[in-house]
Amino acid sequence: MGNSLGKLFTITSFGESHGRCVGVVVDGCPAGLPLADEDIQSEVDKRRPGAGAASTSRSEEDRVEILSGTYNGHTTGAPICMLAWNQDVDSSQYLKNRFLPRPGHADFTAFTKYGGFNDFRGGGRFSGRITASFVMAGAIAKKLLGLKGIEVLAHTVEIGGIKAQPKETDEIRKNIDNNTLRCADPAAAEKMLEAIEKARAEGDSLGGIVEAVALNIPTGLGEPVFDTLEGDLAKAMFAIPAVKGVEFGSGFSAAAKRGSENNDSFTIRNGKIVTQTNNAGGILGGISSGMPIVVRVAVKPTSSIGKDQNTVDMEKMEPATLSIEGRHDACIIPRAVPVVGAMMAATLCDFAIRAGIIPEVIK
Amino acid sequence: MGNSLGKLFTITSFGESHGRCVGVVVDGCPAGLPLADEDIQSEVDKRRPGAGAASTSRSEEDRVEILSGTYNGHTTGAPICMLAWNQDVDSSQYLKNRFLPRPGHADFTAFTKYGGFNDFRGGGRFSGRITASFVMAGAIAKKLLGLKGIEVLAHTVEIGGIKAQPKETDEIRKNIDNNTLRCADPAAAEKMLEAIEKARAEGDSLGGIVEAVALNIPTGLGEPVFDTLEGDLAKAMFAIPAVKGVEFGSGFSAAAKRGSENNDSFTIRNGKIVTQTNNAGGILGGISSGMPIVVRVAVKPTSSIGKDQNTVDMEKMEPATLSIEGRHDACIIPRAVPVVGAMMAATLCDFAIRAGIIPEVIK
Amino acid sequence: MGNSLGKLFTITSFGESHGRCVGVVVDGCPAGLPLADEDIQSEVDKRRPGAGAASTSRSEEDRVEILSGTYNGHTTGAPICMLAWNQDVDSSQYLKNRFLPRPGHADFTAFTKYGGFNDFRGGGRFSGRITASFVMAGAIAKKLLGLKGIEVLAHTVEIGGIKAQPKETDEIRKNIDNNTLRCADPAAAEKMLEAIEKARAEGDSLGGIVEAVALNIPTGLGEPVFDTLEGDLAKAMFAIPAVKGVEFGSGFSAAAKRGSENNDSFTIRNGKIVTQTNNAGGILGGISSGMPIVVRVAVKPTSSIGKDQNTVDMEKMEPATLSIEGRHDACIIPRAVPVVGAMMAATLCDFAIRAGIIPEVIK
Amino acid sequence: MGNSLGKLFTITSFGESHGRCVGVVVDGCPAGLPLADEDIQSEVDKRRPGAGAASTSRSEEDRVEILSGTYNGHTTGAPICMLAWNQDVDSSQYLKNRFLPRPGHADFTAFTKYGGFNDFRGGGRFSGRITASFVMAGAIAKKLLGLKGIEVLAHTVEIGGIKAQPKETDEIRKNIDNNTLRCADPAAAEKMLEAIEKARAEGDSLGGIVEAVALNIPTGLGEPVFDTLEGDLAKAMFAIPAVKGVEFGSGFSAAAKRGSENNDSFTIRNGKIVTQTNNAGGILGGISSGMPIVVRVAVKPTSSIGKDQNTVDMEKMEPATLSIEGRHDACIIPRAVPVVGAMMAATLCDFAIRAGIIPEVIK
Repeated sequence: MGNSLGKLFTITSFGESHGRCVGVVVDGCPAGLPLADEDIQSEVDKRRPGAGAASTSRSEEDRVEILSGTYNGHTTGAPICMLAWNQDVDSSQYLKNRFLPRPGHADFTAFTKYGGFNDFRGGGRFSGRITASFVMAGAIAKKLLGLKGIEVLAHTVEIGGIKAQPKETDEIRKNIDNNTLRCADPAAAEKMLEAIEKARAEGDSLGGIVEAVALNIPTGLGEPVFDTLEGDLAKAMFAIPAVKGVEFGSGFSAAAKRGSENNDSFTIRNGKIVTQTNNAGGILGGISSGMPIVVRVAVKPTSSIGKDQNTVDMEKMEPATLSIEGRHDACIIPRAVPVVGAMMAATLCDFAIRAGIIPEVIK
Repeated sequence: MGNSLGKLFTITSFGESHGRCVGVVVDGCPAGLPLADEDIQSEVDKRRPGAGAASTSRSEEDRVEILSGTYNGHTTGAPICMLAWNQDVDSSQYLKNRFLPRPGHADFTAFTKYGGFNDFRGGGRFSGRITASFVMAGAIAKKLLGLKGIEVLAHTVEIGGIKAQPKETDEIRKNIDNNTLRCADPAAAEKMLEAIEKARAEGDSLGGIVEAVALNIPTGLGEPVFDTLEGDLAKAMFAIPAVKGVEFGSGFSAAAKRGSENNDSFTIRNGKIVTQTNNAGGILGGISSGMPIVVRVAVKPTSSIGKDQNTVDMEKMEPATLSIEGRHDACIIPRAVPVVGAMMAATLCDFAIRAGIIPEVIK
Repeated sequence: MGNSLGKLFTITSFGESHGRCVGVVVDGCPAGLPLADEDIQSEVDKRRPGAGAASTSRSEEDRVEILSGTYNGHTTGAPICMLAWNQDVDSSQYLKNRFLPRPGHADFTAFTKYGGFNDFRGGGRFSGRITASFVMAGAIAKKLLGLKGIEVLAHTVEIGGIKAQPKETDEIRKNIDNNTLRCADPAAAEKMLEAIEKARAEGDSLGGIVEAVALNIPTGLGEPVFDTLEGDLAKAMFAIPAVKGVEFGSGFSAAAKRGSENNDSFTIRNGKIVTQTNNAGGILGGISSGMPIVVRVAVKPTSSIGKDQNTVDMEKMEPATLSIEGRHDACIIPRAVPVVGAMMAATLCDFAIRAGIIPEVIK
Repeated sequence: MGNSLGKLFTITSFGESHGRCVGVVVDGCPAGLPLADEDIQSEVDKRRPGAGAASTSRSEEDRVEILSGTYNGHTTGAPICMLAWNQDVDSSQYLKNRFLPRPGHADFTAFTKYGGFNDFRGGGRFSGRITASFVMAGAIAKKLLGLKGIEVLAHTVEIGGIKAQPKETDEIRKNIDNNTLRCADPAAAEKMLEAIEKARAEGDSLGGIVEAVALNIPTGLGEPVFDTLEGDLAKAMFAIPAVKGVEFGSGFSAAAKRGSENNDSFTIRNGKIVTQTNNAGGILGGISSGMPIVVRVAVKPTSSIGKDQNTVDMEKMEPATLSIEGRHDACIIPRAVPVVGAMMAATLCDFAIRAGIIPEVIK
């Protein structure tokens, strides 16, 4: 269990890294939305390993197919099943290291929880590859939100300790697709790229931080006290492998601030009540304030590294050394960016449908 | 909607700050657990404003009453309704400032979402007082977890930028109830107290960070990919007003680490597979590893401050100045500590019941 | 668990027959609905044992109190907790027969499931008294539906094998509150009353059938394939103790019909598409057709009867004879009528909110 | 929305009658269950239109493929996606009658609800063909229940008003697969077959009643007051197109009985408490009593009939006559039998997992 998310816009993910496919069923998409394979494909392509230095060499040419829920180029109100068939799979190393859990991965916990029956090849259900299914669902969510002028922008703000300078929305929008690292600050991106190259050369990996911003969110989304915007967004983000922290607005830095610094004063702009700053990240009391929603997500460094690591042989119950060969991202951040955006879009879409902002039929 | 949390151990919170009561219905508690009003009371007392400098002067003498779900001193398997009647309520200031939303509070978003029908007195449903209902539910969860030797320890690790030194578990357990700030590092606690006094004197407030640790968690809790331990714990934490960030293990600091630093090597200790470090915070792939689960929660500085603040009059739609008199915590952290522990306990209890670790009947 | 119902309009029931109270939390009621204790009271009074021959002599003077979720006479959007304190409770007989499960009751299954910790007094959580909490929730649902012109009419159509003649809606509406049996056919009601008197005199009891009709339902409610109108209405009905069958429209009689008889032809009336008959009971494909929704509920004869019955002593594990004294309804049907109406209203209200027909704020 | 069912054993159905496929995702299946395509196929074959007179001539040679959730012939604990590709589809008649809703079908309600965007070909999402996905899920549930000795037997008890004689369990088990009508009473089956032939010859159709029995159910399944066995079983049954009534045990006939007749006395057999009769259908207070669970499901006559029918043209808004050619079952009952069994199995499996009877890992 645990593979469904959302109350009225519900995502059910399925598939494994080295199984037949990775896919998702989206239930609750309104009828009448124009939707073709290409709409999904273009989003999924964004998380494809690039030609750039930051990426793995596994050639994941995911061709998305919509299996249900559309007719005549529009959604029908029925559940939309989409998937990409797996290709270019080489499981040999995983079979060889069957009983050697990789540090930082779910090999050990999955082995224990599922009594050794888990499909461990390529990390199976715990592979980053699963996030392709999130992006498929997010592609639909983005289209639905777009109908109401809501836009979700995700971008890299930190890699290996190198921080991007804050940029205006327009620059973020422009840069993220122009840049292998999906970073709005080209100068920082260059340094990040060097750091990644260095880490890779040393058989190591880097982590980073992804930020996502939702624009034109109406006031009033969110269902306190438990189904808050922050709570449901955070839950969605933690579904992304390697995410270990989530914060909104001033986030952890708020802990060191004073109330007089951190409070966002209200003012009137263009006849609307807004705040002068946005330390709240667009959320007060779990409800959207109308300001941009800002979430930041900490991604740990890729667990698969070239260096030898200490582990145990789970079968023989003795110490062992693990040497991971294979193909791995030295830094997963650029590929995590569209996934963070997708999860934000899916979550906001669910709230928008609950609030009746997105209707049952798109006309 | 949005006032229920948990799949098999379900909490439904109700009540307002200045209404008749604050309470909760706990559904899914196994039958046979010894339970009396006092078991709940002792936990709720921990979030009571202390005599210490850190606390508000509203005298919240919450007397908890169990209204259903117990018989002959034991739980019956039926839903447990518990509440505390509100007392010592003074709504005059709220009535006066009816249309002046307090910066940092939910006044504006609640007003907009509920069309002005929200009970705004004392923040109504968005008051920190609501967390008394979380603590009631958490008290039951803690008892259930305790039957399996699972312990949840929450404590203050940072206030106003002052960080506590890391301490051993024994010291944490010993110090947190000995200390008005619920901080395991007495030296830091002293400095924190001074900082709070200073902020209060200046009509200002401080934020901080609360850490919670769960000990003796068996391997295998958590339901990936969406109902992960991190995801559900984070969602629960964001229900606490003023929380703006949640991280596990090395959390945000992992973003600046290398894989070789952040990966936790496996080893064998006492015949069990463990990790040599715990950067994962006891969670791999969303599943418990058997190591302590470590979560840290960023709490923004109290929004209610003595200083004048800029706001708007929502009725007249014109700028206004707000001066909050009343009784407020200059730092909410010590009172948030038992709430963080309660939410962690409630969430883990839900997972433990799903996993069959806690049975339907306690014998 | 299992004490909550509904997706966006959620009812959480609590309380026991001989405990402190019976109550409910309604989450998801829009803000702005005028609501006072009296609105709930008048509905709850309908299930009160009448002075008539059909009723028990326990004097259940339920005074409903709203504990949360309203302010200034309107709902606030926050969860509404309501309860009635129990009075006039005599548990002596239940204590005496602690280990003798009453045939037809849940004594045996509850004892087994909850390991003997269940509150067995008066049937505890399995008492018909619990349905007072359903009626409280239904009272709110009825008010919400009423805003959209939707009306729910429940009435007795059969008792002890005596069938009421079908009546027009107007007559049903007029008669059900004029009549201790809540039957729209006064002639049948008279015979039913005699049958009840006879059964009572013989220490026996009678069952019957309750019908509920929802009028002015818009086309399009219901979420196939699992969250159908029939499915969710039926689930709600089976929460009522003693219900053993549920059917819609022609129901079980359809099994013996031919397609050409049972199909409802479409036609146009007042510019709207309607059906010429309503064998579908207003539901096609799980979705409302705009015709009246018609559900019929089979209620078994009251399990508590005066005659001696064979049972077993669960402690000694030996055969025993049970003689139930106490106060019991010889026929529960008239008191079940408002409960059936309440469950129908609550379920339809949930669907109406999902469909956006009832908005987040009532203006 | 509405396409998922179950709390811990969750079914998400997708696909359309004339789309690419019909399938299901099963989430919450324990790891370690041996499972191959053939296990699913053999169940799905049971609802295939037979060679017999009772069946449609569309050749639905469904080849089931498992796309995820298994490895090395066992389930892995991950979600299991299964589907059958659609073949032999002829949509011409549906395209021709696009705006003429078929009486008894969901054409009109789906058209209205989804704004005309529904895939109407072959009834789309509302086709009986969708139940193939239920049977796929039920096949897994049956295997899981079988591990605990729980057996589900479904059979035809009435067609066209002709009732089968009650038979012993052994005879039911033996006959249902020997008999094109899946009826345990061969003599009645013969008469039913004649009646079907007659109806078919007249361009008409017949309804009937399916009974399902679950054997070896342990005492204590079910979660009152809302998640009762009856409630969740009924909800599952109403997902089957054409079902208009559901009853348990003595069901609707209880309405005309006296308490002394309908109550099941307790007695001791083989050291266990049992009831002497089973009017309760194995359920008391929504909880299993240990006696066989007995549910009966009323299925209306097939809506598609050869005779001309009155309908309206939804586009032109004028009366119309509909003549359905095509291939249709004159009586759907025999094909509904495995579906009823599948839904019963899936629902009971969910309860058994909640109760911890079926563990997380099968060893």
